[in-house]
Amino acid sequence: MAGYRTISFLSDYGSVDEFAGVCRSVIADLAPEVTVIDITHEIPPHDIRAGSLTLVRAVQYLPEGVVLAVVDPGVATQRRGLAVEVAGGRGVFVGPDNGLLAPAVSLAGGATRAVEITDPRFGLPAPGPTFAGRDVFAPAAAHLCRGVELTELGPAVEPSSLVPGVVPLASVDDTGIDAEVLWVDRFGNAQLNVGPDDIAHLGDPIHLVIEGRPRTATAAYTYDEIPPGGIGLVIDSYGLVSLASARSSAAAELGLDAGSGVRLEEPSDGDRGADPTSTPVHLHPKPRPDTGR
Amino acid sequence: MAGYRTISFLSDYGSVDEFAGVCRSVIADLAPEVTVIDITHEIPPHDIRAGSLTLVRAVQYLPEGVVLAVVDPGVATQRRGLAVEVAGGRGVFVGPDNGLLAPAVSLAGGATRAVEITDPRFGLPAPGPTFAGRDVFAPAAAHLCRGVELTELGPAVEPSSLVPGVVPLASVDDTGIDAEVLWVDRFGNAQLNVGPDDIAHLGDPIHLVIEGRPRTATAAYTYDEIPPGGIGLVIDSYGLVSLASARSSAAAELGLDAGSGVRLEEPSDGDRGADPTSTPVHLHPKPRPDTGR
Amino acid sequence: MAGYRTISFLSDYGSVDEFAGVCRSVIADLAPEVTVIDITHEIPPHDIRAGSLTLVRAVQYLPEGVVLAVVDPGVATQRRGLAVEVAGGRGVFVGPDNGLLAPAVSLAGGATRAVEITDPRFGLPAPGPTFAGRDVFAPAAAHLCRGVELTELGPAVEPSSLVPGVVPLASVDDTGIDAEVLWVDRFGNAQLNVGPDDIAHLGDPIHLVIEGRPRTATAAYTYDEIPPGGIGLVIDSYGLVSLASARSSAAAELGLDAGSGVRLEEPSDGDRGADPTSTPVHLHPKPRPDTGR
Repeated sequence: MAGYRTISFLSDYGSVDEFAGVCRSVIADLAPEVTVIDITHEIPPHDIRAGSLTLVRAVQYLPEGVVLAVVDPGVATQRRGLAVEVAGGRGVFVGPDNGLLAPAVSLAGGATRAVEITDPRFGLPAPGPTFAGRDVFAPAAAHLCRGVELTELGPAVEPSSLVPGVVPLASVDDTGIDAEVLWVDRFGNAQLNVGPDDIAHLGDPIHLVIEGRPRTATAAYTYDEIPPGGIGLVIDSYGLVSLASARSSAAAELGLDAGSGVRLEEPSDGDRGADPTSTPVHLHPKPRPDTGR
Repeated sequence: MAGYRTISFLSDYGSVDEFAGVCRSVIADLAPEVTVIDITHEIPPHDIRAGSLTLVRAVQYLPEGVVLAVVDPGVATQRRGLAVEVAGGRGVFVGPDNGLLAPAVSLAGGATRAVEITDPRFGLPAPGPTFAGRDVFAPAAAHLCRGVELTELGPAVEPSSLVPGVVPLASVDDTGIDAEVLWVDRFGNAQLNVGPDDIAHLGDPIHLVIEGRPRTATAAYTYDEIPPGGIGLVIDSYGLVSLASARSSAAAELGLDAGSGVRLEEPSDGDRGADPTSTPVHLHPKPRPDTGR
Repeated sequence: MAGYRTISFLSDYGSVDEFAGVCRSVIADLAPEVTVIDITHEIPPHDIRAGSLTLVRAVQYLPEGVVLAVVDPGVATQRRGLAVEVAGGRGVFVGPDNGLLAPAVSLAGGATRAVEITDPRFGLPAPGPTFAGRDVFAPAAAHLCRGVELTELGPAVEPSSLVPGVVPLASVDDTGIDAEVLWVDRFGNAQLNVGPDDIAHLGDPIHLVIEGRPRTATAAYTYDEIPPGGIGLVIDSYGLVSLASARSSAAAELGLDAGSGVRLEEPSDGDRGADPTSTPVHLHPKPRPDTGR
């Protein structure tokens, strides 16, 4: 096997402590030719769900190679440390088996082989057991890049035995959809677990209910089409529906965090009258041809 | 054209979300040999002025190559996405045409050619239109590095048609100068839009007026020369005058943020008596020879 | 001399301002083949002690090459800027001589040669004297990588003349140990300046006194062994004892910051009865063989 030349690296290590930097050092020491791409290290501490969803959003854009992902509250317990080969060898995911990896593995073509990382030849001697990123996962990722065979890292495990990730599904009933906020980004956009087709039958504007409070949202193609002070429904850059505002935080305005519930319903009379200045537009499943992108 | 081997990357994407990481991934996928240099991704969201001033401070230190700059509140509207060649090909600025690029382009030698990035061959298919960094700008930057000709990216635009940036000018009158804080850095230094020559005639110490409140500031060569609790005027590392304190935040002490107004006047009797322990020194337009740097 | 191919870079520049990015740009411009590894740039502003301890934790994992470390409150004063060769040339530390470098230099094998960086040929012309990272240290690091001899940078200084770092020592008396918190990490673990052997004679559980308030802590091998709501004593990834909680912040629970004092004593009757659900385990100086890492 020829190995890999990039490691895409995600963790909850933050950027204040040297954790991620030390992992990068370990990789540079073992495999100096490898390029490390930091996806993010600011997954909230121990938040496997957030890490898993971030990997899912990023995975289709990652170059071929190793994906090193560490959100690991159960470090040094019986949870397994895995290397999971996807798509017949186009990539390998390395990290703890706690639900972090499985959804992205699936999106990346599915696991073709997997091993538990146990062979101490491919790890670092550890003064204590709590930093598996440095002592187990980063070295394994580096060795894979250098051409070490997956099966050398440890015993094979059944690819189907990976701990599954939590993928929240929206719930549809006769009058609307109970959705969930998957992610609030830096700009205050609140991504929902629904696509444009899921809500097309509800019309536009849409009636929102958030913790019992009603709001109206109108479909918009761009952020800047959303009327000042209003809430827009935008197809975001991942093809999902996001609640957004123009140059301000919709999440702050609506009191939303990752995991919050949002109910979407057909508009009532109040919604239609709520903002006479807005021109309803339909959510487009594809970019408008006239923008060229 | 031989292309470029570095992309200097600035944005308001932050480091919490994976936005910048995904752009780095897109570049690594399209142009694996390219080195990406992160200038910063912590421009405040949508703050074109701050992004523009940061580029201006950094531009003279960037290596030849592509500068990828994305602060893009108008994404997917009619604002243009540009690639602007400077200095006859020594570099190309890639980003939205909203005032972010123009001041740095000018400092880098001026635009020699410019195109609007429209050719979908050099972008990624986008599920939604809101992440032009990933879908338009990063791919264009990568393709330029690989040797794609500027003119292949889209139709030529007049270099002089770039949206100009806002460069706040200080206002001089008979008794002083109305200056503006350009930037407050991590250490609490408040950079003003005046150079040492602009205030030399005011003497030392200088009388400050900030939101109607008087303060005294004394010229200092280094931070540690500023008396404890006092405010110093230092020629900063960009050759501009900064308000500073010794090992504490002058901006916090004075209540200053980027954009705050500061009036500088000749000293009154109160200023001269304000701090008898301080030894006034003159602001040096050049480093002292005895420091060797 | 063949030079070096990596620069490991630590500073208190933060990631909001472009300081670290500009230093990376300067290096890329002077030595494009060099790989820069960011250890962290989030050392608290001017906190030499925190920077020094971070270097100490990281140094054994850094690849051979240059270590660029800048926490420099005394910039442009009489403090020296140094390049310190360690281990007969396996590495060079570059930074201010203020206690930041000395402890890591010692751990890395000790200084074999040192020079003061004064030759302007290897620096950048500086509009002002306050950004030595950009104008002095990053260029010196880049030139060293390119093969410039250490002695070309400036006059030799006595390696033993480095300003020593502050390494707080725990104080042992008849009934216990007065320890100090070296570091609180992102997860709220509070690293103490004691190793497992230092406290083995105190038994388990251990009686803590923090600002006069008593607490009980039990030894644990992993974070998840610590009972909910309890405080554990874990051998951390550097071989020191850390106060920890399971999936929450021990430091927040105990009101600890870097520098806080913690007294450890033999258990009293109250400690033994404090948490009947906990199963005391002994702190293991080495990882358990059955975990394989």
